Amino acid sequence: MFIQQLINRLGTQKISKSESELYRHSHDESIHQKVEPDVVCFPDCREDVQTILNVASIYNIPVTAFGAGTGLEGQVIPVEKGISINFDNMNRVVEFSPEDMTITVQPGITRMNLNKQVNRHGLMFPIDPGADATIGGMTATNASGTTAVRFGSMKDQLLDLEVILADGTVIHTGTNAKKSSSGYHLTGLFAGSEGTLGIITEITLRLHGIPEYTMMARCTFDSLETCAEASHTILGSGIPIMRMELVDQTSIAQVNKYNNYHLPCSHSLFFEFAGAKTAIQEEVKLAEELMKDLGCDNWDTASDPTQQKELWKARHEITYAYNHLSGMDEVGADVCVPISQLPKLIVYARKLIEESGLNGGIWGHVGDGNFHTLVMFGKNNTEERKRAESVNEALALKAIDSRGTCTGEHGVGLGKMKFQEKEHGDSLAVMKGIKEMLDPKHVLNPGKIFS
Amino acid sequence: MFIQQLINRLGTQKISKSESELYRHSHDESIHQKVEPDVVCFPDCREDVQTILNVASIYNIPVTAFGAGTGLEGQVIPVEKGISINFDNMNRVVEFSPEDMTITVQPGITRMNLNKQVNRHGLMFPIDPGADATIGGMTATNASGTTAVRFGSMKDQLLDLEVILADGTVIHTGTNAKKSSSGYHLTGLFAGSEGTLGIITEITLRLHGIPEYTMMARCTFDSLETCAEASHTILGSGIPIMRMELVDQTSIAQVNKYNNYHLPCSHSLFFEFAGAKTAIQEEVKLAEELMKDLGCDNWDTASDPTQQKELWKARHEITYAYNHLSGMDEVGADVCVPISQLPKLIVYARKLIEESGLNGGIWGHVGDGNFHTLVMFGKNNTEERKRAESVNEALALKAIDSRGTCTGEHGVGLGKMKFQEKEHGDSLAVMKGIKEMLDPKHVLNPGKIFS
Repeated sequence: MFIQQLINRLGTQKISKSESELYRHSHDESIHQKVEPDVVCFPDCREDVQTILNVASIYNIPVTAFGAGTGLEGQVIPVEKGISINFDNMNRVVEFSPEDMTITVQPGITRMNLNKQVNRHGLMFPIDPGADATIGGMTATNASGTTAVRFGSMKDQLLDLEVILADGTVIHTGTNAKKSSSGYHLTGLFAGSEGTLGIITEITLRLHGIPEYTMMARCTFDSLETCAEASHTILGSGIPIMRMELVDQTSIAQVNKYNNYHLPCSHSLFFEFAGAKTAIQEEVKLAEELMKDLGCDNWDTASDPTQQKELWKARHEITYAYNHLSGMDEVGADVCVPISQLPKLIVYARKLIEESGLNGGIWGHVGDGNFHTLVMFGKNNTEERKRAESVNEALALKAIDSRGTCTGEHGVGLGKMKFQEKEHGDSLAVMKGIKEMLDPKHVLNPGKIFS
Repeated sequence: MFIQQLINRLGTQKISKSESELYRHSHDESIHQKVEPDVVCFPDCREDVQTILNVASIYNIPVTAFGAGTGLEGQVIPVEKGISINFDNMNRVVEFSPEDMTITVQPGITRMNLNKQVNRHGLMFPIDPGADATIGGMTATNASGTTAVRFGSMKDQLLDLEVILADGTVIHTGTNAKKSSSGYHLTGLFAGSEGTLGIITEITLRLHGIPEYTMMARCTFDSLETCAEASHTILGSGIPIMRMELVDQTSIAQVNKYNNYHLPCSHSLFFEFAGAKTAIQEEVKLAEELMKDLGCDNWDTASDPTQQKELWKARHEITYAYNHLSGMDEVGADVCVPISQLPKLIVYARKLIEESGLNGGIWGHVGDGNFHTLVMFGKNNTEERKRAESVNEALALKAIDSRGTCTGEHGVGLGKMKFQEKEHGDSLAVMKGIKEMLDPKHVLNPGKIFS
């Protein structure tokens, strides 16, 4: 019935019930249980999205937005079935103002496509979660990644969002000005709301100038704790690093084994420095001194792009090295804690993995206190999976106890719902109140964030 | 009746009905009509604030928070009388973690006091609205100022807020981690909400390292438009400036006249560069080249603190020079627009002031598209006041039409209520819905933001 309505109002080309589309929209890159939607819609414009929400509201049908499907917490899985909205056909640049260093895009554009279009103007969109996610998906999950230490997360890049509310109203949450003290700050509220408060149809982003000069560096430490402390030393020094990543020894070994590399097999720190050439050269010198004072080995730098890639190889290939273990599945954590708590938490994570008896690694964006664990278990081995998940759970609880968060960048989705009460306490009721007000019929991505 | 309740529950020392206290809490630094509260409370701790809100809720009495009284839009004026909460006795540092570069404070601490405590650790809290405002007031209005071009506004400094809701519930809006994707982003919602959604009792802030080296510069331009364009050129160059301020010729003349100075009397740009010494020296050289290419005069730099003060004199003394014209009052605007619209808007503002036949100046934080006008009128001269206010109004409407905001940093309070519908459109209903949910009895700063 509602599908016929969608066909009548959008036309058959914008609707699919094909096996392959239903399957594609049943999952993301996580191990959460796949659920197929009843139908997939491919809107072209905001009016199409309004139509979809109108039909959903009339028939009380769940609506779940889908970007590139690269999420890690099941946000796009339509757990209560219904309509999946795919943004492949809403991937245009609406307006680009190089002089304002801003761009307005539709949600379906991916970050790499966006960068292709702005790079030639000397500008970049720096947020880099690894995957070539859509800007809509990154906004909806408040994604970040390796450059957050310098640029913050998605919410810090947003000037304005066009959002379609559950009742079809189109709102703008901000303006094109760089700052504002007018009214309540709704942009931040919709960022990271995972499609539970409204459907984002346009996003106005800050862009940044491409730095004149980039230098990469890598060094190793015997102890994981020193490695974490070293990242802390760099931050305290005021060196404005672009990226700072930690990869633990187990993961380096995994990369070596998988690719037959011979990278120095110790806990490693990877750096990217970017800015004016003379400034960077000074800063790299200072970083080297600081790291050597802490007893690092294998300090190495590269300014040539090919050598840079080589130097960062272990970091780039780490998830790949784990993901491709045949017959294995994995669970990952992405806790974020105050920097001072990081060494303790990383050591705790290593201990949890050892105790689980499973293979697993630790790496992360240690510049902002955010790191990942990845624990491998035999596909369909429920007992191993339980052990792997309990590592995740213990780590998330410890992070919250250390006044951090259960998720630094992946979002809540399905996997972090169980930690919401512990993390947010009484503010969870405020969140639920906002949800209730904006989506009284619970059609917007039901079953996510709140249980 | 409710005052007796407050006395019974808080004790007499925490309550005042003295003439002088009622008067102090009747106004801020704006020309909005003074209104005295019925009573002023001086809480000591969160429990006192809970008590006040509890009494307010039982007797349905308005509650308005008061910081330093340095606001410019009447946010602290208790327009419906009731209780004014003064935070003079809640001005402590709750927790300071130099290694995390974070600090948790009570709302009554002023930004200068805060800096006194963290500067000795090589850290600073950079947001500088000019006045020595309280951190609570700055948070509640999402203040910013001269350093926003580098650090953003208050909301960008906040990791966590402790807020007492109208019903007395204590919530925390965030954690101490640098980033999070867990739940809805409530911190940004309470920042800039002007005490209409809850009363802030603790604020956890990011701190920043004090830069190694600072250099100031100043130059002048014959045309106001070129001056605005020049600021735009600096931004596009990628030079990471700390402050960039424009002061128009009329205002320079005013400062000269008031103080008997002989500063070069043209439209002026003021710069502060801060960072690693070698980097800064390079950047200042580049800035000089760029400004000279655009035809600037009087390029001058200073690295010595005394000389720096001298160089920035006109900027520092501008409001003072206007405020002290005897028998005069003033109204000011603080629009913020996309950088590309700035030259046009500044020229438009100048034209409006000329047409009004009144004396007035333009200056501002042009690095983020935010500038101020100040138009003088005879005290008690209603006709002149009307003309002065119509400059403000026309400028705010033009800013909104240029996809900017009616207030870049002062907030809505009483003066910008009339622009809310035009600026926010249908999202105003969402804001009102949130207000309704969190403050169904309308006890929290009624008569502000929404009419």
